Amino acid sequence: MQLGMIGLGRMGADMARRLSKGGQQCIVFDVQPAAVQRLQQEGMVGASSLDDLVARLAKPRAVWLMVPAAVVDSTLEKLVPLLEPGDIVIDGGNSHYHDDIRRGGELGARKLHYVDVGTSGGVAGRERGYCLMIGGEKDIVKHLEPVFVALAPGVAAAQRTAGRQEDDSTAEQGFLHCGPQGAGHFVKMVHNGIEYGMMAAYAEGMNILHHANAGNQSREIDAETSPLRDPQFYRYDLNLGDIAEVWRRGSVISSWLLDLITGTLSRDGDLKDYAGRVSDSGEGRWTIDAAIDEGVPAPVLSAALFSRFTSRGEADFANRVLSAMRKDFGGHAEKSGSSTG
Amino acid sequence: MQLGMIGLGRMGADMARRLSKGGQQCIVFDVQPAAVQRLQQEGMVGASSLDDLVARLAKPRAVWLMVPAAVVDSTLEKLVPLLEPGDIVIDGGNSHYHDDIRRGGELGARKLHYVDVGTSGGVAGRERGYCLMIGGEKDIVKHLEPVFVALAPGVAAAQRTAGRQEDDSTAEQGFLHCGPQGAGHFVKMVHNGIEYGMMAAYAEGMNILHHANAGNQSREIDAETSPLRDPQFYRYDLNLGDIAEVWRRGSVISSWLLDLITGTLSRDGDLKDYAGRVSDSGEGRWTIDAAIDEGVPAPVLSAALFSRFTSRGEADFANRVLSAMRKDFGGHAEKSGSSTG
Amino acid sequence: MQLGMIGLGRMGADMARRLSKGGQQCIVFDVQPAAVQRLQQEGMVGASSLDDLVARLAKPRAVWLMVPAAVVDSTLEKLVPLLEPGDIVIDGGNSHYHDDIRRGGELGARKLHYVDVGTSGGVAGRERGYCLMIGGEKDIVKHLEPVFVALAPGVAAAQRTAGRQEDDSTAEQGFLHCGPQGAGHFVKMVHNGIEYGMMAAYAEGMNILHHANAGNQSREIDAETSPLRDPQFYRYDLNLGDIAEVWRRGSVISSWLLDLITGTLSRDGDLKDYAGRVSDSGEGRWTIDAAIDEGVPAPVLSAALFSRFTSRGEADFANRVLSAMRKDFGGHAEKSGSSTG
Amino acid sequence: MQLGMIGLGRMGADMARRLSKGGQQCIVFDVQPAAVQRLQQEGMVGASSLDDLVARLAKPRAVWLMVPAAVVDSTLEKLVPLLEPGDIVIDGGNSHYHDDIRRGGELGARKLHYVDVGTSGGVAGRERGYCLMIGGEKDIVKHLEPVFVALAPGVAAAQRTAGRQEDDSTAEQGFLHCGPQGAGHFVKMVHNGIEYGMMAAYAEGMNILHHANAGNQSREIDAETSPLRDPQFYRYDLNLGDIAEVWRRGSVISSWLLDLITGTLSRDGDLKDYAGRVSDSGEGRWTIDAAIDEGVPAPVLSAALFSRFTSRGEADFANRVLSAMRKDFGGHAEKSGSSTG
Repeated sequence: MQLGMIGLGRMGADMARRLSKGGQQCIVFDVQPAAVQRLQQEGMVGASSLDDLVARLAKPRAVWLMVPAAVVDSTLEKLVPLLEPGDIVIDGGNSHYHDDIRRGGELGARKLHYVDVGTSGGVAGRERGYCLMIGGEKDIVKHLEPVFVALAPGVAAAQRTAGRQEDDSTAEQGFLHCGPQGAGHFVKMVHNGIEYGMMAAYAEGMNILHHANAGNQSREIDAETSPLRDPQFYRYDLNLGDIAEVWRRGSVISSWLLDLITGTLSRDGDLKDYAGRVSDSGEGRWTIDAAIDEGVPAPVLSAALFSRFTSRGEADFANRVLSAMRKDFGGHAEKSGSSTG
Repeated sequence: MQLGMIGLGRMGADMARRLSKGGQQCIVFDVQPAAVQRLQQEGMVGASSLDDLVARLAKPRAVWLMVPAAVVDSTLEKLVPLLEPGDIVIDGGNSHYHDDIRRGGELGARKLHYVDVGTSGGVAGRERGYCLMIGGEKDIVKHLEPVFVALAPGVAAAQRTAGRQEDDSTAEQGFLHCGPQGAGHFVKMVHNGIEYGMMAAYAEGMNILHHANAGNQSREIDAETSPLRDPQFYRYDLNLGDIAEVWRRGSVISSWLLDLITGTLSRDGDLKDYAGRVSDSGEGRWTIDAAIDEGVPAPVLSAALFSRFTSRGEADFANRVLSAMRKDFGGHAEKSGSSTG
Repeated sequence: MQLGMIGLGRMGADMARRLSKGGQQCIVFDVQPAAVQRLQQEGMVGASSLDDLVARLAKPRAVWLMVPAAVVDSTLEKLVPLLEPGDIVIDGGNSHYHDDIRRGGELGARKLHYVDVGTSGGVAGRERGYCLMIGGEKDIVKHLEPVFVALAPGVAAAQRTAGRQEDDSTAEQGFLHCGPQGAGHFVKMVHNGIEYGMMAAYAEGMNILHHANAGNQSREIDAETSPLRDPQFYRYDLNLGDIAEVWRRGSVISSWLLDLITGTLSRDGDLKDYAGRVSDSGEGRWTIDAAIDEGVPAPVLSAALFSRFTSRGEADFANRVLSAMRKDFGGHAEKSGSSTG
Repeated sequence: MQLGMIGLGRMGADMARRLSKGGQQCIVFDVQPAAVQRLQQEGMVGASSLDDLVARLAKPRAVWLMVPAAVVDSTLEKLVPLLEPGDIVIDGGNSHYHDDIRRGGELGARKLHYVDVGTSGGVAGRERGYCLMIGGEKDIVKHLEPVFVALAPGVAAAQRTAGRQEDDSTAEQGFLHCGPQGAGHFVKMVHNGIEYGMMAAYAEGMNILHHANAGNQSREIDAETSPLRDPQFYRYDLNLGDIAEVWRRGSVISSWLLDLITGTLSRDGDLKDYAGRVSDSGEGRWTIDAAIDEGVPAPVLSAALFSRFTSRGEADFANRVLSAMRKDFGGHAEKSGSSTG
């Protein structure tokens, strides 16, 4: 079917390519003309403006937004007046599901349909396919199925799950209508929350392995520092690339994330190219917000989120409070060295 | 090659089967004669006692222990006097690596070789192969390679890692000599620590999804309980089996653990067969011990471990302290109902 | 000065008593006539309705709400139409500071003044005085100072802080104008977040002391359970009441919370009267929400909050997911007993 | 009574002074002659060597060690041969209670008595008195009571606990015989674990207050960064010194730690003199080790400990793993700026 794609950054452009390869017709637009031209050179139809995009689409139109969450509303402000009752807007970016519910209501008042799609897959998605979590009206989601089929990985991408009954769910194809508006981004949000937790689990474990030679380093003796009681237990120089590789086969913790990090660790076991300032794009935060609203404990997912904040220096003031307290009650001066037991 | 296998529980028996299928000769023994008989009926050679086992093995003997960690030392006490210099003992169970270092020294004093093997793979390992993390003397590990090859999944079990250089590491085959004695169980220990973290990440995420309909439940109003501020955001009835299934293809959080839980959630999305008392077999604890010794933070892995303790009621006294404090300063009586915001 | 007090529950009634004792005139009202009568018998002026309350107050009126957060808005709906420009409404309950900002705007549009007061002190406050954290317009807060002085503990309640400069802050008296509308409840919110963390610190520590005799209990040996490696280190039967008492003098962790729990632990070291279902009234949640919005890590405060959720059974589904996974990959059946290592 | 004091650092010298002032006779020794001379000038008897110290003490001798945990064993190696059956050695430093149990056994074999004393109070202890947690043989602890009385704060240091029965416990005086050897340092260890948790609770809360003006800072918009959804809620410039001060009177979170930090925050609300590298001297670690051994959850205390590790850069490698993963799956380049949402 025909689809207008707005936003041709890394994700949007690759999704347009996968859609085209999958036999769907994409009319593409971006505020950066160069991004449109690139895809035109690959054979897609480019639009010169939102008006032009809308004019080129057959009714009922289907327009997919793949823009930063922060500019979805301003884009809709310009796009919506151009649309007509029955047209469909799909937000495939990283919107907060609260915004989906609000936008769904606003567009619905104009007889426009709003569908939210949480999209996972990253840069590998173009080849591997995208996992799509969808919220919206049932018949509209059904109407868009050719698009989802083209974007999703398909059943063959993984072994069938033993014991799953034959049903009408599309989950095995890699896309799923999760529920009403907002449900797609809600499920994607929790997906990312889980992702943070898994990533942190690997990262903490790798860090423990990385320091398995701590017993080979000498430490000074003073009243503030407890010596490493048993240095003889920490004399291992481990090859993290090999360890990640061996875990990829047969172990309980094999995963796609592990596959990814194995290549990097194999090339540079010390990860010297990275400084360790870890960004977060919102979903991890919203996952904890949702857990708190629901009254559901999320100690692991929140610890993973807070580790990212801390990696960016956001615990600094708290740490200064701790050092000041130690000075005040114990006369402890801060140490300038790195290893203080 | 020839191997004596002591301990024919779930793991030991399946490993003997995989070894036999892989062309290795297993002489098997267990304190339960029935366990020996079962494997004899499958064509393996059974031993009637430790003496018998040792007598049937060609020198230098290789004996693999697959017994509970708590009985390794008592087994060695009986086995070691029967062995001769040059013989090899392999502990493939869940021993603490501190014990490996001690046992390695004790056996070394008798000119016996000790190899520790951390084994991952669970009940699926018989078909899928076992991921083996190995510690010990380099030439002894090399000598045992046919055994490891037979047990491990082999290169074909996963896609090759892009960018890994050709090297002499066996990691791609699913087994790895990690370092000197104890290194195998050290790496396996951290593996399990990571496993706890990943499992908790999925579990917490699933719990948040499970309660996504919290806004549909009414809550009483009182001075102690804050109402759910925005019930309209929590009206989703989600199908966890379908969601797990859709994540298996194309998503960033696809993994073997997810594959496993998908079948179960597809059959029973409420997991009514489980009470939620979660055991832990030691490695998760030791991982945190190691992190603390190394001075390395492990907030996610420790939160995962503590969640298991708590699931078994071990926070009860702490919670009573909290309730008592609330009573003392605020006059708050404990509520007997379940949902108190 | 004269003050209307709406809401004569535990906190409201005691505050009216302290105000009266401090020379302020309270006109009191509650939807429960019996609550009004009780204070009338103590000599205060009671109002039979909101209209009556408003009629009895001299202009500009000052009305203090001490009602559950969930009914503040419905109370304001009835109260506000009765008021006149220049009148002051004070919310002394546990409102979310977002609501203060909204209400401040709504009342401001009617030329009414809105002041938010976070109140700490609990049942002891009547004698000990209340710690008041105040948000609102500077001159209005100044106008209400006699009320705050009467409610607050006063300078003599604690030793002067060495090194604090003489300034015009009222902090030493136990009340503080923290900033514009919402600032009072914001600071009170974080106060409660800290309170959760401190309470959890004591509770976890007490739990560790409570189990210091773990080595005296026998545990079965099996493949799933790691034995307590060193039972000889856990043979202490500790008297928690005595330990809390000794910490009250000279130790770094002496505090008012410790004072409180000491009495209870001295009477019943096992806290048999409590079940350990710990409520939370909102501020702890909002503290974490704020931390997340600000991008500030709060691993300790969030762990404390989540422990409360968990104490009420809200982790149950997550735990069932863990048990199911363990069954799926390891064939581990759930144990029904309590101690599984 | 007479006491030999070995180790005249900050704590040891002040304790000798308090003992002298309390009418006890101290013979003092330190490996640094200048430290001995200082106390001699204050009127105490100095010893020129361990032999000299032992020679000057009446039998049965009582010798108090106040030296870094790391040198207790080497000190005992020299001291013990000089002692005679019936003599008493007290370790008042920060020893691990495992070492107490071992040393108690070793000294007991020589008919020497070993007493472990966990000491809290810091630099304020000289004036305020020390909180003493004691482990050892009952009659020996009783024999030393004059020493403990002189060091402890005494009953008057705090209000009596309502409802505590008259008993023979010395807890109200600020010292307590907790149990057999090791029990003193065990209780002190958990005390410090609680201290870490309380300090972190304040520090995290202060950090949230410190960033309450986050809405006043502009942030760039891009696909990786979620904007602060509601900047209008974060426009408070709070005075942390005043807030700490107001909490000291009447609030639930008043404590000695809060008293201490108030002075510092009042002088410098930004704590510019501190870098935020927070040391830890061992007990916090051992508390978590004990919790894990006992199978008791300690999510708050462990989070507090790990925050300290992280403040010293020990999470860096884990963070690099996270950044590498984000690059691998999402093509996300690390940001060099500080605020990435």
